[in-house]
Amino acid sequence: MKLLEERIRKDGVIKPGNVLKVDSFLNHQMDVTLFNEMGKEFVRLFQHKKINKILTIEASGIGIACICAQHFQVPVVFAKKTQSINLDGEMLTTKIESFTHKRTYDVIVSRKFLTTEDHVLIIDDFLANGCAVDGLIDLVKSAGATVEGVGIAIEKGFQSGGKLIRDKGVQVESLAIIDFMDAENEILEFRKQEI
Amino acid sequence: MKLLEERIRKDGVIKPGNVLKVDSFLNHQMDVTLFNEMGKEFVRLFQHKKINKILTIEASGIGIACICAQHFQVPVVFAKKTQSINLDGEMLTTKIESFTHKRTYDVIVSRKFLTTEDHVLIIDDFLANGCAVDGLIDLVKSAGATVEGVGIAIEKGFQSGGKLIRDKGVQVESLAIIDFMDAENEILEFRKQEI
Repeated sequence: MKLLEERIRKDGVIKPGNVLKVDSFLNHQMDVTLFNEMGKEFVRLFQHKKINKILTIEASGIGIACICAQHFQVPVVFAKKTQSINLDGEMLTTKIESFTHKRTYDVIVSRKFLTTEDHVLIIDDFLANGCAVDGLIDLVKSAGATVEGVGIAIEKGFQSGGKLIRDKGVQVESLAIIDFMDAENEILEFRKQEI
Repeated sequence: MKLLEERIRKDGVIKPGNVLKVDSFLNHQMDVTLFNEMGKEFVRLFQHKKINKILTIEASGIGIACICAQHFQVPVVFAKKTQSINLDGEMLTTKIESFTHKRTYDVIVSRKFLTTEDHVLIIDDFLANGCAVDGLIDLVKSAGATVEGVGIAIEKGFQSGGKLIRDKGVQVESLAIIDFMDAENEILEFRKQEI
């Protein structure tokens, strides 16, 4: 998606260790106008799918998921990273390893909000090693619901997550795919995409 | 706001200990259509204020804040509850005590995203003892920015947070204010409001 790629080139900051900081518009400060354009694009990419729910994970996926959900006219459920005493009833749980935070999270969703009737689009801000998305797919499957696809803002195409999830037969659509980045020389190469 | 009050009566669950569970539409599964109506109401309530940024706190404030931000045509910044290694540069920090989780969080916002130019509307899902909102006000003030108001979905009017924040001279608008709740007898009393 050209609009997102241009924004990454303009406001993203490449850091050593293949870190891309997009906190000025994507995952700390959030540009909801951009998110709306992303939502329209996800609708186009998943137009053949019957989607009745969007699933994301706290915290940085929530804003994108909510804005995009308007374009699908469906509710959003977000998976929570720690057990909350306000969550009772039956829980679906999985474990997700975070390379960023160098720890493993317990991730939970109330069983009430993922059922066998649900056709789920998973949305998140980043896809790198795929642990978070893989965990969300686990949760959907353990509910007996159907994963209709995965919509990602930025995929690190040089990491294994995209292949891992696509090899499961899941439709993954990433609005910007970075194939190469180099902090020292400020190089960022996007994979060629249609729009 | 009648629409929100009716939804709370329909789908909210009153639990012992003055706990109101609204996780089917507000803070776990999220009804973005309802959030849009809330956004329109916040615009009406703060129409005399010059607002250029919305501040919220992860995780359950983010969805409401993002949907509402569309109606103000401003970006959202969310405060983060733990130090992330991906956040560098100068940070604004405060401490927030969570009664729900019985712990104290370090809460941080990048100084880049709160400046002396900013006129901030704080948005959150609940106002009870006021610790979270008070912490966010702290962050805004420490940035030299201006707090233009606080927009809350559900205020527990029988707890002290509303008075605490209003006594600071801050305009607080809560779309539903609960004055009394009783789990045993399933009683929920809302404060009379205009709309």
